Amino acid sequence: MGASETVEVTGHLMDSGILSRILDDIRDYGGDYSIDTFDVGHEAHDPSSARITVRADDDPSLQRLLMRLQTRGVNQLDPGEAMTAPADLAGVLPDGFYSTTNLETRVRVDGSWYDVENPEMDCGLVLLEAADGGRRVRTVPMSDVEAGMRIVVGASGIQVSVPSPESVGDAFAPAPGEGAYEKPQAVLVRQVADGMRQARDAGKRLLWVAGPGVVHAGAVPAFVALVRAGFVDSLFAGNALATHDIEFSLYGTSLGLDLGLAQGVEHGHEHHVRALNTIRRSGSIAKAVEDGVVTSGIMHALVTEKKRFVLVGSVRDDGPLPDVYTDVIEGQRAMRAEVADVGYCLMMATQLHSVATGNILPATVPLVCVDINPSTVTKVADRGSNQGRGIVTDVGLFLEQLALELVPDYQRS
Amino acid sequence: MGASETVEVTGHLMDSGILSRILDDIRDYGGDYSIDTFDVGHEAHDPSSARITVRADDDPSLQRLLMRLQTRGVNQLDPGEAMTAPADLAGVLPDGFYSTTNLETRVRVDGSWYDVENPEMDCGLVLLEAADGGRRVRTVPMSDVEAGMRIVVGASGIQVSVPSPESVGDAFAPAPGEGAYEKPQAVLVRQVADGMRQARDAGKRLLWVAGPGVVHAGAVPAFVALVRAGFVDSLFAGNALATHDIEFSLYGTSLGLDLGLAQGVEHGHEHHVRALNTIRRSGSIAKAVEDGVVTSGIMHALVTEKKRFVLVGSVRDDGPLPDVYTDVIEGQRAMRAEVADVGYCLMMATQLHSVATGNILPATVPLVCVDINPSTVTKVADRGSNQGRGIVTDVGLFLEQLALELVPDYQRS
Amino acid sequence: MGASETVEVTGHLMDSGILSRILDDIRDYGGDYSIDTFDVGHEAHDPSSARITVRADDDPSLQRLLMRLQTRGVNQLDPGEAMTAPADLAGVLPDGFYSTTNLETRVRVDGSWYDVENPEMDCGLVLLEAADGGRRVRTVPMSDVEAGMRIVVGASGIQVSVPSPESVGDAFAPAPGEGAYEKPQAVLVRQVADGMRQARDAGKRLLWVAGPGVVHAGAVPAFVALVRAGFVDSLFAGNALATHDIEFSLYGTSLGLDLGLAQGVEHGHEHHVRALNTIRRSGSIAKAVEDGVVTSGIMHALVTEKKRFVLVGSVRDDGPLPDVYTDVIEGQRAMRAEVADVGYCLMMATQLHSVATGNILPATVPLVCVDINPSTVTKVADRGSNQGRGIVTDVGLFLEQLALELVPDYQRS
Amino acid sequence: MGASETVEVTGHLMDSGILSRILDDIRDYGGDYSIDTFDVGHEAHDPSSARITVRADDDPSLQRLLMRLQTRGVNQLDPGEAMTAPADLAGVLPDGFYSTTNLETRVRVDGSWYDVENPEMDCGLVLLEAADGGRRVRTVPMSDVEAGMRIVVGASGIQVSVPSPESVGDAFAPAPGEGAYEKPQAVLVRQVADGMRQARDAGKRLLWVAGPGVVHAGAVPAFVALVRAGFVDSLFAGNALATHDIEFSLYGTSLGLDLGLAQGVEHGHEHHVRALNTIRRSGSIAKAVEDGVVTSGIMHALVTEKKRFVLVGSVRDDGPLPDVYTDVIEGQRAMRAEVADVGYCLMMATQLHSVATGNILPATVPLVCVDINPSTVTKVADRGSNQGRGIVTDVGLFLEQLALELVPDYQRS
Repeated sequence: MGASETVEVTGHLMDSGILSRILDDIRDYGGDYSIDTFDVGHEAHDPSSARITVRADDDPSLQRLLMRLQTRGVNQLDPGEAMTAPADLAGVLPDGFYSTTNLETRVRVDGSWYDVENPEMDCGLVLLEAADGGRRVRTVPMSDVEAGMRIVVGASGIQVSVPSPESVGDAFAPAPGEGAYEKPQAVLVRQVADGMRQARDAGKRLLWVAGPGVVHAGAVPAFVALVRAGFVDSLFAGNALATHDIEFSLYGTSLGLDLGLAQGVEHGHEHHVRALNTIRRSGSIAKAVEDGVVTSGIMHALVTEKKRFVLVGSVRDDGPLPDVYTDVIEGQRAMRAEVADVGYCLMMATQLHSVATGNILPATVPLVCVDINPSTVTKVADRGSNQGRGIVTDVGLFLEQLALELVPDYQRS
Repeated sequence: MGASETVEVTGHLMDSGILSRILDDIRDYGGDYSIDTFDVGHEAHDPSSARITVRADDDPSLQRLLMRLQTRGVNQLDPGEAMTAPADLAGVLPDGFYSTTNLETRVRVDGSWYDVENPEMDCGLVLLEAADGGRRVRTVPMSDVEAGMRIVVGASGIQVSVPSPESVGDAFAPAPGEGAYEKPQAVLVRQVADGMRQARDAGKRLLWVAGPGVVHAGAVPAFVALVRAGFVDSLFAGNALATHDIEFSLYGTSLGLDLGLAQGVEHGHEHHVRALNTIRRSGSIAKAVEDGVVTSGIMHALVTEKKRFVLVGSVRDDGPLPDVYTDVIEGQRAMRAEVADVGYCLMMATQLHSVATGNILPATVPLVCVDINPSTVTKVADRGSNQGRGIVTDVGLFLEQLALELVPDYQRS
Repeated sequence: MGASETVEVTGHLMDSGILSRILDDIRDYGGDYSIDTFDVGHEAHDPSSARITVRADDDPSLQRLLMRLQTRGVNQLDPGEAMTAPADLAGVLPDGFYSTTNLETRVRVDGSWYDVENPEMDCGLVLLEAADGGRRVRTVPMSDVEAGMRIVVGASGIQVSVPSPESVGDAFAPAPGEGAYEKPQAVLVRQVADGMRQARDAGKRLLWVAGPGVVHAGAVPAFVALVRAGFVDSLFAGNALATHDIEFSLYGTSLGLDLGLAQGVEHGHEHHVRALNTIRRSGSIAKAVEDGVVTSGIMHALVTEKKRFVLVGSVRDDGPLPDVYTDVIEGQRAMRAEVADVGYCLMMATQLHSVATGNILPATVPLVCVDINPSTVTKVADRGSNQGRGIVTDVGLFLEQLALELVPDYQRS
Repeated sequence: MGASETVEVTGHLMDSGILSRILDDIRDYGGDYSIDTFDVGHEAHDPSSARITVRADDDPSLQRLLMRLQTRGVNQLDPGEAMTAPADLAGVLPDGFYSTTNLETRVRVDGSWYDVENPEMDCGLVLLEAADGGRRVRTVPMSDVEAGMRIVVGASGIQVSVPSPESVGDAFAPAPGEGAYEKPQAVLVRQVADGMRQARDAGKRLLWVAGPGVVHAGAVPAFVALVRAGFVDSLFAGNALATHDIEFSLYGTSLGLDLGLAQGVEHGHEHHVRALNTIRRSGSIAKAVEDGVVTSGIMHALVTEKKRFVLVGSVRDDGPLPDVYTDVIEGQRAMRAEVADVGYCLMMATQLHSVATGNILPATVPLVCVDINPSTVTKVADRGSNQGRGIVTDVGLFLEQLALELVPDYQRS
């Protein structure tokens, strides 16, 4: 094999199975390796570190492998300098572009290291130089590439940090002394509540992502109470959540009672289209609230409490509501604009919007995914680092318990 | 077609889709039919009734079809007299035996009607005559047939009643005036609580069926509180529930925290086998409680509150506990002996024991099946009549809410 | 109750449970009813018909109830004349608009009946009058309403037909003489193959809807064979299917081997973003095929066989491919333009696009939904009429068998 | 911490995540550790090994921890000598008994090592001494313990070997050169077929475990073909599989067509009870075959081909068939008697019997679990070593493809 490079990786390599994934990657990319050193620490909780020489048939193969390994937090021992190439076409990254992770990343240019401002998965890195010579490095999604942008290519000069369990996962660690008779579900609710309080106390914002199941499961009162008590700063959702919430408010449709064996209640249900038409007539959800058309529910609470929401459409939408971004790329941009100071993210009963949000959230933001469907929880929460926690449970009862935990005067209905 | 008979059926035929199933049955058995009269009532809530002439190629085919239809509550217009044949072999029903439903059934012998004492699915009917000429009709499972028993054959002289929604389903009807902002999960919990209170007030017993998921979901404190407050009269379970509960009590194993993406924690876990061995040494669960070996948990509560339980084994059991029926037929007999005065049945997180219990419960007993797995709920609760209610939710949070509803001083942990 | 109207409904009312849903609707809308006549026919297979007087508190309530009932195929005995109102705002239907079903519908204006040209769910009806006085009635989705359009309001003058099992469901009926040893899965595959051949022979087009699971399950060769043999006229999909297919072609990524316990392989996988970038550089999938960049796979086959595809984006998309409609409303319009002559629709392993397609397909088009997830099959195939067939199975093995059935020289790999 | 011991473990520690589980165990048992040496090998595929000093509060705690660790293949550096204690009660192991894994295990007595003859999970180890002084060590399930047996206690003198991927997992390794367009499902079927052929060629027996889903999915012809071609040596199942198969043979019930959204077809279905009664009258399945009562199907093929089967009952059984072990402990004994020379095990569509079989199979037997339900596959195939392979797919189509692969003249129906 003609090309080789020595890389290193540090962290709780075995706890997270990360080393085994690294070796799999090398094999998948047709490379080979030898492990030069491996130090697992001596005492429990010591991090481990490895130094590995990876080999590939030629340098382009090696570069691609190195870029791949960086998605696992594996960095070159001698990082070198980042190389860039200009984008020749709008919306297209130059060949050999560095494909990002959502991990903390820094880039070395002319001997100096620059932190990537907004880590996000599956983007390019653009090097911005101000007139005064000040440099910044940002992620840029493919669709936002402008011709002429200086884009990082290859794996040189890049360093990625896998978050330590201490920094992120603490919110999810089992509390010491949890005795035999503790109730796990209650423990989980309390851990989530603690994480939310900590994030809020640290001046961070709380981001929610929710699907229509929140309405169907009867969690509107609990969610409204959390909004009013200041535990919801932003909501990401689709047309369905907002429409079902508003339909519920306008018509009192007892959709919620049709839980259980999820029935296809949404379509062919004329209340649904009338609710949509009513808000379209108002012009926006906020206007419908202002005009007294919508007087209750989740969207009403967000509007009256002046909280932000980003609704992004999908191909199955009726209507949609006037607030919905029908262009999904514009919707993603609106979502990106909201994640800046997020310190905790809760994902409730939606796979589509949860995955979309997970893609743009930095790995340093703890996230909790609650869904009754194990496969959604697996897809969303299993993110290759310990930043996520999945809870397979009923979103209705979970939110009820969370409101009881966080909102002092919340009354069980 | 050479043989025909006129049958009739009464009830909420369309609400339950029963008529469509009847017509399907006739087709499936190669028969034909014409509908002589059909009366759907005039006002809402009137029951409907139909009179149908069914035809088959010959009389044996017709008899089999008629017996099939009786499982739907379809009776012959002219019921005639029941015929019997002696069982010629122990454990075997005579050819042409009448195969039972769990619906209310009566049998006509010598011009008199006799109620079947213990309706149960998939049994034969035995006619018992006392020395003084007194007659009784009981169901008899195949394995309990004794040579010489007089067993009902054919469909003549049998009448089956489908329960009306009024008699059974009321426990599950949406309460009038449930407004738009009611929480469905809370509504469901309250309906179940009401049904349990009504059954208890009516002097009926409350039967529970539970799987090990109850322990894993952290519901032991809630369940114990329900036992102590008198809301558990009998428990049907397997070796796993009892062993996990006792293991939890003995070792404080934090099994419960491993919820979510259900891992195969049970096997290879030596706490499990040690717990089993400990109770085997004691001789019985009750003795282990008496000796102070087991001092907490569900089984401890049942023993100290003098409640009954029937544990029936399965092929995957370790141990098992000394109280477990290792012979499943003997286990079924023990279960049958417990269902006599049951007025409400709750099935939690177990498919095997729930189906087994559903088979021996009369259709007049309301049952609620709670499971996070929709397919279990479907299999157990979809029983062809409106006696069952399925709730797809988290059993841990459900029991927590139910204890809050039913037990005045129950504290959230 | 102050307002009443007599309605009638004809069809296989009991087979489909339709009558029970009608009565539920009346109750849900706070109305009341009495059944004037009910005729179930005499012989098997006769359709049944009912005449029902429905009552509501006032006329507006009655109108809403009547519109609701028409979604079930319940028509007014005296249909009257359709009323229209002008749309006062673009994108908004006038108050009291008639909300459509996807059933065959006709509208009476000035004593003449007009067939609705393109039945679709959850739309309005627009009355178009040509300069020469020629009239047409079309469905119009809310977002395509233009100010001044004449929109049908209220339920008068509208007649809806529920498809008979004969017209639609035949494709799915068990063939007579299917003996005991028939293989159900093989039977189902053969029925689908027959339905596809019949539709093609009748000059109809075959529409497919597919998710990325088709690629993961290893069904690319089978799908390509079906395209080449003329059994795929149009494909509806999202960015993911096309990207995974192209990634597979470009990099030979053995994504497909990661089946089973579906892992979140898509994200963080740099092959994925490189494939997207490559096609964005080409400008379109067709150009990438033309330029020899993409030389195999599903998209390659569609392009070279000159078949059409509509790719509509979602909020979770990377890239996306240049062919993807990023505006979902424009994407829906492109889909609507494709459904005109569709005679059979196959939906494979995608809930989002299947539901979206189901919404715009007339009820007269048979559809088959294949997914390993029962809840997707339920949501898509349970459409309130007998037009849909759900098959819970492995899409990879299903397509393999279907190709063996339909493509004479298809070789097992 | 007062007590310590140095242990070592060798194998593909990181690939299988085994080291992380070991450290978790130590923490769970309240112990502490330091890693003395850790060698991951140098080249790819080198096994790694670790030497760890574990500490606990006192010696009993340490012994329990060491026993726990041995279930992971972690052995004491200085194994010492095994200690034994007599069983004082039948059916009860002495305190401190060594709880077994299903890994290859050897025991040192008086300086000599003895292989455990029949590795099985969750048992004790009994030391047998012949009159001539010959020693053997066997596993003994708790229920088979006899008073006076010499049972191994503590962790001394025991060595456990985790199977290497080479020895077991090869059957499941992706073949080299599997190109981009390979079909994963076909690849998996072929791998299973190869594993079966290899086991047969090596003189080993092929064990199947099957649930009634095999019949419902229409796989009877494929299964019969596999029996006739010599690819089924033993079958483990419950009452349901055999009864549905026989019902299918006797009545041609098209149960199989009711696949898809699994309906509770079994109960209330009088064919089912009549089939049971018919075989009970015959006295056994073999007698029913001999008498010409049963002339086709899986059980017929097993009987006529003189293959063995073990049917073990469950609490939900009707009947049961006369061949069914109604005592589950006796059923387990019958199963144990069949696993001796098994070289490959296929588990189809049953969780209960698959888990039961997995418990008694040595870790050296490759097993494949096929089920459409991911949670069953996870529970059965995720066994902590690489002996199992789970395939989430349709068992009907899987067996069809497997028969096409293995049986030369198998015809597609």
